[in-house]
Amino acid sequence: MGNTFGQIFRMTTWGESHGGGVGVVLDGCPPGMELSEADIQPDLDRRRPGQSRIVTPRKETDTVRILSGTFEGRTLGTPISMMVDNTDHRPEAYSEMATKFRPSHADYTYQAKYGIRNWQGGGRTSARETIGRVAAGAVGKKLLRERFGVEILACVESVQDIHAEIDPDEFSMAQVEANIVRCPDAGMADRMIERIERARQAGDSVGGVILGVARGLPVGWGCPVFDRLEADLAKAMLSLPATKGFEIGSGFGGTHLTGLEHNDPIRSEDGRVFTTSNHSGGIVGGISNGETVYFRVAFKPVATVMHSQPTIDIHLQNTELQGRGRHDPCVLPRAVPMVEAMTAMVLADHAMRHHAQNKLS
Amino acid sequence: MGNTFGQIFRMTTWGESHGGGVGVVLDGCPPGMELSEADIQPDLDRRRPGQSRIVTPRKETDTVRILSGTFEGRTLGTPISMMVDNTDHRPEAYSEMATKFRPSHADYTYQAKYGIRNWQGGGRTSARETIGRVAAGAVGKKLLRERFGVEILACVESVQDIHAEIDPDEFSMAQVEANIVRCPDAGMADRMIERIERARQAGDSVGGVILGVARGLPVGWGCPVFDRLEADLAKAMLSLPATKGFEIGSGFGGTHLTGLEHNDPIRSEDGRVFTTSNHSGGIVGGISNGETVYFRVAFKPVATVMHSQPTIDIHLQNTELQGRGRHDPCVLPRAVPMVEAMTAMVLADHAMRHHAQNKLS
Amino acid sequence: MGNTFGQIFRMTTWGESHGGGVGVVLDGCPPGMELSEADIQPDLDRRRPGQSRIVTPRKETDTVRILSGTFEGRTLGTPISMMVDNTDHRPEAYSEMATKFRPSHADYTYQAKYGIRNWQGGGRTSARETIGRVAAGAVGKKLLRERFGVEILACVESVQDIHAEIDPDEFSMAQVEANIVRCPDAGMADRMIERIERARQAGDSVGGVILGVARGLPVGWGCPVFDRLEADLAKAMLSLPATKGFEIGSGFGGTHLTGLEHNDPIRSEDGRVFTTSNHSGGIVGGISNGETVYFRVAFKPVATVMHSQPTIDIHLQNTELQGRGRHDPCVLPRAVPMVEAMTAMVLADHAMRHHAQNKLS
Amino acid sequence: MGNTFGQIFRMTTWGESHGGGVGVVLDGCPPGMELSEADIQPDLDRRRPGQSRIVTPRKETDTVRILSGTFEGRTLGTPISMMVDNTDHRPEAYSEMATKFRPSHADYTYQAKYGIRNWQGGGRTSARETIGRVAAGAVGKKLLRERFGVEILACVESVQDIHAEIDPDEFSMAQVEANIVRCPDAGMADRMIERIERARQAGDSVGGVILGVARGLPVGWGCPVFDRLEADLAKAMLSLPATKGFEIGSGFGGTHLTGLEHNDPIRSEDGRVFTTSNHSGGIVGGISNGETVYFRVAFKPVATVMHSQPTIDIHLQNTELQGRGRHDPCVLPRAVPMVEAMTAMVLADHAMRHHAQNKLS
Repeated sequence: MGNTFGQIFRMTTWGESHGGGVGVVLDGCPPGMELSEADIQPDLDRRRPGQSRIVTPRKETDTVRILSGTFEGRTLGTPISMMVDNTDHRPEAYSEMATKFRPSHADYTYQAKYGIRNWQGGGRTSARETIGRVAAGAVGKKLLRERFGVEILACVESVQDIHAEIDPDEFSMAQVEANIVRCPDAGMADRMIERIERARQAGDSVGGVILGVARGLPVGWGCPVFDRLEADLAKAMLSLPATKGFEIGSGFGGTHLTGLEHNDPIRSEDGRVFTTSNHSGGIVGGISNGETVYFRVAFKPVATVMHSQPTIDIHLQNTELQGRGRHDPCVLPRAVPMVEAMTAMVLADHAMRHHAQNKLS
Repeated sequence: MGNTFGQIFRMTTWGESHGGGVGVVLDGCPPGMELSEADIQPDLDRRRPGQSRIVTPRKETDTVRILSGTFEGRTLGTPISMMVDNTDHRPEAYSEMATKFRPSHADYTYQAKYGIRNWQGGGRTSARETIGRVAAGAVGKKLLRERFGVEILACVESVQDIHAEIDPDEFSMAQVEANIVRCPDAGMADRMIERIERARQAGDSVGGVILGVARGLPVGWGCPVFDRLEADLAKAMLSLPATKGFEIGSGFGGTHLTGLEHNDPIRSEDGRVFTTSNHSGGIVGGISNGETVYFRVAFKPVATVMHSQPTIDIHLQNTELQGRGRHDPCVLPRAVPMVEAMTAMVLADHAMRHHAQNKLS
Repeated sequence: MGNTFGQIFRMTTWGESHGGGVGVVLDGCPPGMELSEADIQPDLDRRRPGQSRIVTPRKETDTVRILSGTFEGRTLGTPISMMVDNTDHRPEAYSEMATKFRPSHADYTYQAKYGIRNWQGGGRTSARETIGRVAAGAVGKKLLRERFGVEILACVESVQDIHAEIDPDEFSMAQVEANIVRCPDAGMADRMIERIERARQAGDSVGGVILGVARGLPVGWGCPVFDRLEADLAKAMLSLPATKGFEIGSGFGGTHLTGLEHNDPIRSEDGRVFTTSNHSGGIVGGISNGETVYFRVAFKPVATVMHSQPTIDIHLQNTELQGRGRHDPCVLPRAVPMVEAMTAMVLADHAMRHHAQNKLS
Repeated sequence: MGNTFGQIFRMTTWGESHGGGVGVVLDGCPPGMELSEADIQPDLDRRRPGQSRIVTPRKETDTVRILSGTFEGRTLGTPISMMVDNTDHRPEAYSEMATKFRPSHADYTYQAKYGIRNWQGGGRTSARETIGRVAAGAVGKKLLRERFGVEILACVESVQDIHAEIDPDEFSMAQVEANIVRCPDAGMADRMIERIERARQAGDSVGGVILGVARGLPVGWGCPVFDRLEADLAKAMLSLPATKGFEIGSGFGGTHLTGLEHNDPIRSEDGRVFTTSNHSGGIVGGISNGETVYFRVAFKPVATVMHSQPTIDIHLQNTELQGRGRHDPCVLPRAVPMVEAMTAMVLADHAMRHHAQNKLS
């Protein structure tokens, strides 16, 4: 259990890295929306391995198929089943993982919890699991864009201590996709790429921070007290592999301000309500206030490094494990579409929940 | 909707700050556990107004009553209904709030979402709503302690830029309760108290960071992929009023390390498995690994300040609102039991979920 | 767990027959609807003991209080907490129940499941638990009536073999309330009342069938494949105490027809679509078709009889238990508002779910 | 939405009759259980078309593939994805259905609800949807058998007015599978088969009643007050296509008895507790009491008949529709494994829920 996300616009993902494939069932999508694989594949391409020299060189095309839920190019309102076949079957590349637990990977905890695990390529803990999320999220993004005019976007804000100052209101998808690290600040992007390449050469890895934004939300989305918009975003982000932190608006830095400095004055102009600052990050009391929603997600450095590390084997004996194989030295470039996807899932669900209770007439 | 938290060990809170009271229904508690108001009241006393000179001076005793779910001092396995009467009825103190929206409060968003709001004392957005959480969490804490030997604890780690270095494995409840700001570092506590008093005198407010810990967890709690332990903790914390961020283990700071630095080596000694560092924060792949779980929660400075601020009225006209009344200059001392309560809710739920799927025999 | 019903329009009930009271938290109610205790109490009065000579003579006024979720007479969109105090405390009347299990009551199964039970008056298994349902259902009925023009109604169709032929489209609330057994056929009502009185005099009890209807539904409510409208109605009804069966439309009797006889021809007239028969009971494929929804619920004879019966005691020794006390000889008259309440809960929830997915724009 | 069933042991089905296939994702299955396609296929073979002369002659092999959730022949505790390809693509056979609504089919209600429908072979309303249920249910049956010694079984009890007296405690799978109508009374089975063949020759259809049983349940499964075991069974059964009624134990017939006649005396012998009659159907107060659980499900006559019937077209104009194609004259023989599957889903879920709350230690 634990493989379903959302209340009304709801996805259930399935699949291990090695096995019949990975996929998702998306339930609750409104009917009548144009939808085909062409709406999904671009985000999967942004997520897939082998897309650039700073990500894992594994060859996986990750071609999605829509198995149900559409008819003559439009959604039916029934579950949308999407899947991607597993093609990179090389279990022998992982044979040492059968008997030794990789440090800071989930090998040991899965084994201890379930008493069994698919050790090939990480099994269920593989980032391949996020394929289903990205596919479902692409549907959510389209729904939000077409029915509500809401735009979802994310970018890399920092890699280790290399930090780009990004205005949540200003950067564009074109700027994000203009370089392989997905940082809209071209100068900082170059430095980030260099840092990642250096880490790879050292057989090491690096982490960083992704900035996520949602622009154009109406006032009123979010379900206090527990299903506040920021609470569901926090859960969504911390459910992604390798994440260690989430902050909305001013976040941890905002704790250094006083109330008078932090408060966002409310103004009105020609009937339009807005705030003159946005420390709140577009959400007040768990409900969107019409300003841009922005948040940050911390990703730890990838756990797989090309060094020997102390660990234990499946008999709980101390040993060493030498990292090998084809891995990402930095997960952030590929995580950008994952952050967008999870954002879309949260917002689409809340759009529908808001509609259910508050637009009923 | 959105007022229920948890899958199996599950609470539903209700109540506005002014009205018949506030309360909670806790469903799913195992039967046969000794329980009385004496187990609940101490945490409510740690949460209540008027407990010290650095919190709001409002007089509310917040005396809890258990209305159902126990018999002859033990839990029945049926819903535990608990409530606290509202006693501080002074709606006139809030009359200006009837027509003007407080900046960075939820007045405007509630009004826009629901088309109606109880403006007396914040209504549902009042921190009084957390009474129900703290009451249910006290049951969760007891369950975790008695059935699993798990200890839940939180403390104030920083107020603005005053930061105490706290070892998640070392501080005690006695140290936390030794001073009114609830920071186990006595020297830093004095400075924090002084800072809060200064803010109050200036009619301003301050924020800070709370450290939460759970010690003694067995290996195996957590339900990937979406209901990872840290994901549910993140949601729990971001559902608390005034929170802006959450990080588990190394958090945002950990993004500055390399993988080799960040990985936690696994060792075994006399059959006991442990890691020699704990950047993971006791959770790997969404599942507890037996190390101490620790995390940080950012709380913004309280929005109510004793100054005049630009805002709009209910007719969307620009105006000013002068803050007045009895308010907390800093929410952190009273938020410590809230963080503990939400932690307990998450862990008790996952204890039971783990049991359901993995201990079945 | 198991004490919450509904997805969006959702109630959680709590309370034992003896203890602090019984109540309900209703989450998800749309904001802005006029609501006061005067909307709730009439249905509780139809449910309460002592209302006529054919129900239990226990004196319970069951006066409801709304503790939250309304402001100045209108709903806030926040949880509506409602409760009724327990006033008839006479645990001594139940002392034999402390040590002996009543046959066909839940005493033994509760004791075996939970290892503990409140044996006073049945505890959680008491029909007092339905007070919360009836209170929440009254809100649902009002919502359905005011926002959708949907009318919910139920009546007694049979007591034992005394069967009244009732046209689901024709009977009125006034007819139902015209006699104490709540059967709109006055002649049959007299016979039913006589039968119930005879059972009481014999220290025995009788069961029967309640007919429930919902008129004026729009086409389109219901969420296949699992949350079909009739599936949720079936669950709702079988969750009521003493129920043994549910059938929609033609039900069990319909299995005697052929397809050609059973099918409901569809016709159109001036743009209005209708069927010329209604074996379907207003639901096709799990979705309302605009015709009257009608269904039947079987209630077993009350388990408490004034005779000595074989049973076991808490030490699992064979013994006899002599029934005594003030009990209903027939539960049906008081169950009519319960059936209406559960119907309203299902339909209001589905109205909102339909709106969420299908009216989104 | 509405395509997920269960709380902990939970399935989500997907797929239309024509499209990429049909399938299910089963989440929450305990890890370590041996599982392969060979455990699933037999129940799919009992469900599939073309298996005998009294079901539809369509040729569909319905070969299942397990795509995830197992490793080296054992369950991983992760989602089990199973699917069957759609092979009988003959949309032209359904061309008239594109413009006319079949009476007592869901064509009209789907079109009205969603504004779009896959009219080929019924789309989502096709009985092919139940393939996912039967596959997931086969896993549930195995789990219940191996871990709890619980046996699930169903059979045809009546076809129209041809009724077999079946003792819920006595019939065997071998007897059920001994004839093509799946009635363990061989004599009545012959008459049922003859009746079905006669209906087919007349271009008509017939309905009937299926008896479901679960033997060997421990005392204690079921979650009052809403998730009573019989309530979840009722929902499960009414969620199956073509069902019109459900009764547990004595059911509707039991309403003719008095309380004294209906009560099940409790006895104890050598520490074993039992009742000397079983009008309760193995469930008291929503909780299993250790006796055999038995219930009946009413299936209406199949809506597709080979006659011309009045209906409307998609422009809401009155018209006639001539039934044609390859259809079941009676759904009951193929519905037997569906009833078993849904029973297993309910019981496995409740086994795990009971374990979570009540066996926790």
